[in-house]
Amino acid sequence: MDTSLETIGQQATAAAYVLGQADTAIKNQALLAMADALLTHQDAILQANANDMAKAAENQVRQVMLDRLLLTEARITAMADGLRQVATLPDPIGEVVAGWRTPNNLDVKQVRVPLGVIGMIYEARPNVTVDAAALTLKAGNAVVLRGGKEAIETNIALSDTLRQALVQVGLPKDSVQLLHDTSHETANALMQLTAYLDVLIPRGSANFIKMVLKTATVPVIETGAGNCHIYVAEDAAIPEAIAIIINAKTQRPSVCNAMEKLVVNQAIAPTLLPQLAQALAPYNVTLKGDAQACEILPDIELATEADWGTEYNDLILAIKVVSDIDAAITHINRYNTKHSEAIITNNYQYSQQFTKQIDAAVVYVNASTRFTDGFEFGFGAEIGISTQKLHARGPMGLPALTSTKYIVNGDGQIRA
Amino acid sequence: MDTSLETIGQQATAAAYVLGQADTAIKNQALLAMADALLTHQDAILQANANDMAKAAENQVRQVMLDRLLLTEARITAMADGLRQVATLPDPIGEVVAGWRTPNNLDVKQVRVPLGVIGMIYEARPNVTVDAAALTLKAGNAVVLRGGKEAIETNIALSDTLRQALVQVGLPKDSVQLLHDTSHETANALMQLTAYLDVLIPRGSANFIKMVLKTATVPVIETGAGNCHIYVAEDAAIPEAIAIIINAKTQRPSVCNAMEKLVVNQAIAPTLLPQLAQALAPYNVTLKGDAQACEILPDIELATEADWGTEYNDLILAIKVVSDIDAAITHINRYNTKHSEAIITNNYQYSQQFTKQIDAAVVYVNASTRFTDGFEFGFGAEIGISTQKLHARGPMGLPALTSTKYIVNGDGQIRA
Repeated sequence: MDTSLETIGQQATAAAYVLGQADTAIKNQALLAMADALLTHQDAILQANANDMAKAAENQVRQVMLDRLLLTEARITAMADGLRQVATLPDPIGEVVAGWRTPNNLDVKQVRVPLGVIGMIYEARPNVTVDAAALTLKAGNAVVLRGGKEAIETNIALSDTLRQALVQVGLPKDSVQLLHDTSHETANALMQLTAYLDVLIPRGSANFIKMVLKTATVPVIETGAGNCHIYVAEDAAIPEAIAIIINAKTQRPSVCNAMEKLVVNQAIAPTLLPQLAQALAPYNVTLKGDAQACEILPDIELATEADWGTEYNDLILAIKVVSDIDAAITHINRYNTKHSEAIITNNYQYSQQFTKQIDAAVVYVNASTRFTDGFEFGFGAEIGISTQKLHARGPMGLPALTSTKYIVNGDGQIRA
Repeated sequence: MDTSLETIGQQATAAAYVLGQADTAIKNQALLAMADALLTHQDAILQANANDMAKAAENQVRQVMLDRLLLTEARITAMADGLRQVATLPDPIGEVVAGWRTPNNLDVKQVRVPLGVIGMIYEARPNVTVDAAALTLKAGNAVVLRGGKEAIETNIALSDTLRQALVQVGLPKDSVQLLHDTSHETANALMQLTAYLDVLIPRGSANFIKMVLKTATVPVIETGAGNCHIYVAEDAAIPEAIAIIINAKTQRPSVCNAMEKLVVNQAIAPTLLPQLAQALAPYNVTLKGDAQACEILPDIELATEADWGTEYNDLILAIKVVSDIDAAITHINRYNTKHSEAIITNNYQYSQQFTKQIDAAVVYVNASTRFTDGFEFGFGAEIGISTQKLHARGPMGLPALTSTKYIVNGDGQIRA
């Protein structure tokens, strides 16, 4: 094993032990000190970011990546505000999740504890460095960060700043560690550092996450891709349906909870689709459709089989016409990524059937899929949106960064 | 990919969809029909087991393995009773785990749902076939079973019996599938069947589970090895300490919650150890110790570094003498498998410190480690004891075989 990773793992474990016992007040002090330090060291951080940006431009990195990489004063202020916000959240550690007395008089308590050491592996955005450090710290965990190589100078400047703030309040600086070596070999070794890492959380594109799942032996929380559908039943109120579709498709098309597919009942399609096409026109949404949709909207492109499984993350919407709700559910369960799905209906039975039979982290009746978000859900934070079924599903707040342990108080009980 | 595994995966997914919607009554009917069928088909099952036993004897399989493999009328009756017991347990599916209203009037409910398709991979014991089928079914999941090759005829007879019972009550027979091909290649392919399996639960020796963790790309729930310690503080009541140690070490030494190590404060060691050695004498426990323990008990063997990390699963106990509770906690956290640890003390501060600082699924004050068990905890069932921190920790009952989904009811909300 790589010696430096071995050292990083040992340091993280030692820091996690201290953080696991740290009281809420000191963790909050650390978060506020981190916020202050980001502003104090703003010039150095912006300089490091300018170096990364220059290198990226040299290497002809795509514009969308450059946008993600760029830091500004406003973005640093936003990061600092984020840290202060996390300081205001309730501390999940120590919560008694359940408790009972057994027939032989043992008092059993299930208590929330930190996970321990969390690995975060992500692509260009340097704000993940600060977000991840804040949330893992508040939940009493040490974190090992591995960001993209394009952002390495920025990430070093950010993590050094955060580590100095930790030392200021008397917490171990190794509560937050960043891999300075951004080689693939070291990333792969981190994904297999089972002796020290309790969990690995990848953030990035669908392909990136697939690669991590393939390589990692450390347990992974899969965050993710969203091929989100809205089904419009035959009884839907058309103005409401159109308002929700416009919102879900256009309000922020690049994110995972944006709508990608419209499934529409054949009884309402001839009325809905022309009105929808007209309403979407100002938003520059490219429409595609199956044969039936193309009959109603002759100007749109015929969707291919590949379309149904694709997350566009763009102003494209593919339309599938179905005979009934059963066909809608079958189609959605076949092609969705188990993220967020919605039905527009005023039919009670449909609403029940859809929410029960659709397999997804979040299922909506008469609302936009865009609400799948830790802040919208009221968690006050979000480490990602889990699309797996183990450990955490849907928007993940601080409790997703914790485990539990049982504490059993007895008075000499032995097993018969 | 292996075509037959592909087919098995598709069949399991289809069955899981039906089970996910099945009501409690029909799942319970299936469990009772399975219990009846085991008794009806007892002769065929015992014959299949006799064939496995004969082959195993030919292949000079060890006696302990033969004991695990053997079925008797009594063991089949016990399996049937187990199925009936699971039928009496509350159905976890549909439970509203949490629910709230957001500021914009969305009603959010977090509802318990099945995991989907569960892979179980295990060694010789054929009762796991029946236990796993019962628990996964009750929690609304389909299961794909892969038992040891020594038990293949027995497992086929058992799973065929269970599948017939499923058909009788109108549930899909593919709710329970057994891999008839027991090759390592097929087992490895099952561990990587991410397109169909939501989770993989291995049951078996520590080495077996390590191998599964290495090979699997499907998320694994690690069940586990137990290198369990009891720390006796300097103030402990000696008769209570001895009673707990005898119970934890000797009541069933082969299981994971049995005690493996005694850590004892140096102030009480000279009094405790001779009395303990005398009390343990009738139980044929081999004692080992560090240098200090060997000074007090000159007849015992000196423990090596390897001893401290070893789960003996046998009538062996290694003794470590420490200067204080901090040294005890450091030693235990270094060598334990994060399963079950206990302190014997009447000191309030020690009890608090030990339960907070020890990193383990279950931490006891003044009770035997042998209580770490789904039945003893009152779960009415146990699919295993998780020694990982993700998803489930400690004894796992039916809820460990579930996930949740969010159902969000709106009236036209769009995101601002």
